[in-house]
Amino acid sequence: MASKLISSSPNSLLLQNPNLQHRNHDLLLKPTTKMASFPNLTNKVKAFSIKCSATAATPLSQSQDLEERVFNFAAGPATLPEKVLKKAQSELYNWHGSGMSVMEMSHRGKEFLSIIQKAEGDLRALLNISEDYAVLFLQGGATTQFAAIPLNIVKPEDSVDYVVTGSWGDKAFKEAQKYSKPKVIWSGKSEKYTKIPSFDSLEQTPDSKYLHICANETIHGVEFKDYPDPKKWDLGPSGVTIVIIRKDLIGDAQGITPVMLDYKIHAENNSLYNTPPCFGIYMCGLVFDDLLAQGGLKEVEKKNKKKGDLLYNAIDESKGFYRCPVDKSVRSLMNVPFTLEKSELEAEFIKEAAKEKMIQLKGHRSVGGMRASIYNAMPFAGVEKLVAFMKDFQARHA
Amino acid sequence: MASKLISSSPNSLLLQNPNLQHRNHDLLLKPTTKMASFPNLTNKVKAFSIKCSATAATPLSQSQDLEERVFNFAAGPATLPEKVLKKAQSELYNWHGSGMSVMEMSHRGKEFLSIIQKAEGDLRALLNISEDYAVLFLQGGATTQFAAIPLNIVKPEDSVDYVVTGSWGDKAFKEAQKYSKPKVIWSGKSEKYTKIPSFDSLEQTPDSKYLHICANETIHGVEFKDYPDPKKWDLGPSGVTIVIIRKDLIGDAQGITPVMLDYKIHAENNSLYNTPPCFGIYMCGLVFDDLLAQGGLKEVEKKNKKKGDLLYNAIDESKGFYRCPVDKSVRSLMNVPFTLEKSELEAEFIKEAAKEKMIQLKGHRSVGGMRASIYNAMPFAGVEKLVAFMKDFQARHA
Repeated sequence: MASKLISSSPNSLLLQNPNLQHRNHDLLLKPTTKMASFPNLTNKVKAFSIKCSATAATPLSQSQDLEERVFNFAAGPATLPEKVLKKAQSELYNWHGSGMSVMEMSHRGKEFLSIIQKAEGDLRALLNISEDYAVLFLQGGATTQFAAIPLNIVKPEDSVDYVVTGSWGDKAFKEAQKYSKPKVIWSGKSEKYTKIPSFDSLEQTPDSKYLHICANETIHGVEFKDYPDPKKWDLGPSGVTIVIIRKDLIGDAQGITPVMLDYKIHAENNSLYNTPPCFGIYMCGLVFDDLLAQGGLKEVEKKNKKKGDLLYNAIDESKGFYRCPVDKSVRSLMNVPFTLEKSELEAEFIKEAAKEKMIQLKGHRSVGGMRASIYNAMPFAGVEKLVAFMKDFQARHA
Repeated sequence: MASKLISSSPNSLLLQNPNLQHRNHDLLLKPTTKMASFPNLTNKVKAFSIKCSATAATPLSQSQDLEERVFNFAAGPATLPEKVLKKAQSELYNWHGSGMSVMEMSHRGKEFLSIIQKAEGDLRALLNISEDYAVLFLQGGATTQFAAIPLNIVKPEDSVDYVVTGSWGDKAFKEAQKYSKPKVIWSGKSEKYTKIPSFDSLEQTPDSKYLHICANETIHGVEFKDYPDPKKWDLGPSGVTIVIIRKDLIGDAQGITPVMLDYKIHAENNSLYNTPPCFGIYMCGLVFDDLLAQGGLKEVEKKNKKKGDLLYNAIDESKGFYRCPVDKSVRSLMNVPFTLEKSELEAEFIKEAAKEKMIQLKGHRSVGGMRASIYNAMPFAGVEKLVAFMKDFQARHA
């Protein structure tokens, strides 16, 4: 049976959780010599939110004060906390008296080293990541990881299992075909990716070296609830991919692995083998710091649940005017796809919402409809405004 | 003989120049059916500089006015034009009235599309790049390109030639061994990478599919002068790698190529196959715009020559107190390595210079000594200050 669980999502954390001794599921996964317990991540906190108040920072100019910020419901890149943006702005030209921008710093200088080390330390604190795990700040997006995972962890002849709950899992599976013998052991495609299987129901391939899931499918809005999984974040701007990987899995990459995809190279060099995406790492650091200041994941999870409930209730109580196709038990707290009963009104809905400064509500081009992404940094006020708009729109088009 | 010339450098542009019908060298490279002329890039402009005046932008705060900016001689990440930093800072929170930061924009929205399209258009104008070439904005650094080049362009059994004039060429060669049959046809290693071969002297492998050079070795400070080569830039912050590639070379990548390293995927999708490094691309766009405003490459080349002359003359006229090991004919206009006759004074030199706000003068850890990187954005005043300091230091330690 699979000895490792790998979960990936665009802009999310990839991590190894081989210990699925978890509630009712322990018969499926028995400890082997390769497995280590992962007690720190049996925390069932999944998504969470952060409430941003648009205060505090000294306005940089009068005109900026007056310019209204939009509520941006895009799925990624996505909205960032206002406090973080203001801070980044204020120190962009001269970081902490260094006389230079973060963008100009040598990645091997003491200033940037302090930035990346703090970012890693804060992330470890937020997620309670033990020293058994390496934290890598990489380039190339989740899509590069679709190749890096099999290249680093298995041999071309090895069996690996994929659970495909949406487009990202599907892409991960296809990429793995180049480097391993992947098998899709469950696919939600026939049901238009509105479901997630129970772990009990999975038939894992004997001798499969890992099981790959995509913890949150951003396009289809389905999220694993019951497994220890990576936390979802507004990490920072695009261009930084964070990989959290158990150290004993590193070091045996296939010979054809490009050096930039080799976890060992990056782990040995603390993500500084070559020039990392410095400004992106700096922004991630500001986000982590802000999350800690909010009280950590428990606190932000409460806020996210509140936002998700507000939006899903509005959909469920609309007497069918709004519909969410996703099975209720696996509704994502991050990406909420919905459609109109009167689908011909969808374009108008999106257009009117944009006029009201609620943007990027159009669904992914592969599925249509609408989608509201409500990550950590989406203020509660944004969801309130959207829901008010939805009710008003319905009233005008009943 | 090699049908293509590939030149690469960290943070530089990779491009195909198969037409080396160039001055005395045309006997070495004859047109084949695969070659296309590359008239636009026979321009022999190499490095160039930009003179930045620290003016114009409204100060964001009193304290920032007072904080002195350093002269940062790092090799990459490196100093950026002050105007560009000020502009990025002023619009970081709210880009052009959009109500959001560039870092938050959907990469498929109209705002970011306008940013990336302008960046590409300006780059094409700056370099006079014809439509025969694709311009790709990628992630992964030059190091990823060391793999991507052979993966995309040749088959595992193909011969390819490498000219190794420094550490980067050496790394490129080693990476290519995974994906092709590379051969080092010339190496400067025995002379500590202080020379560059004349093209006449190279013995290219028959049937070699390409010839790879590193146009400017940042660690050793040697630069090709006589070939059409990529221009060197302070493109922007780390995290963006620009590839300029002749379109007819795209489309036949090896089966093991990770999708993120496949030029065809990126070209077909205008660099938007997945989420690109948006903020980095935006910063590049600001730099390109600024270079055009300076009058384009001809103008910045003049400035860079002036800076280079000033510094190299100071070294040459120091009666041996300062020494540059590089052969004069191939001295880089971007990275100037030098040592002290009294090498025991080097640590003191670097320390005192830093006190004078001239930082990052320490040579690369693999070579020691000092290194001043004087890219486009290094103000002339920075080089003047360095030279004055060098003269003073010499006077005090004669």
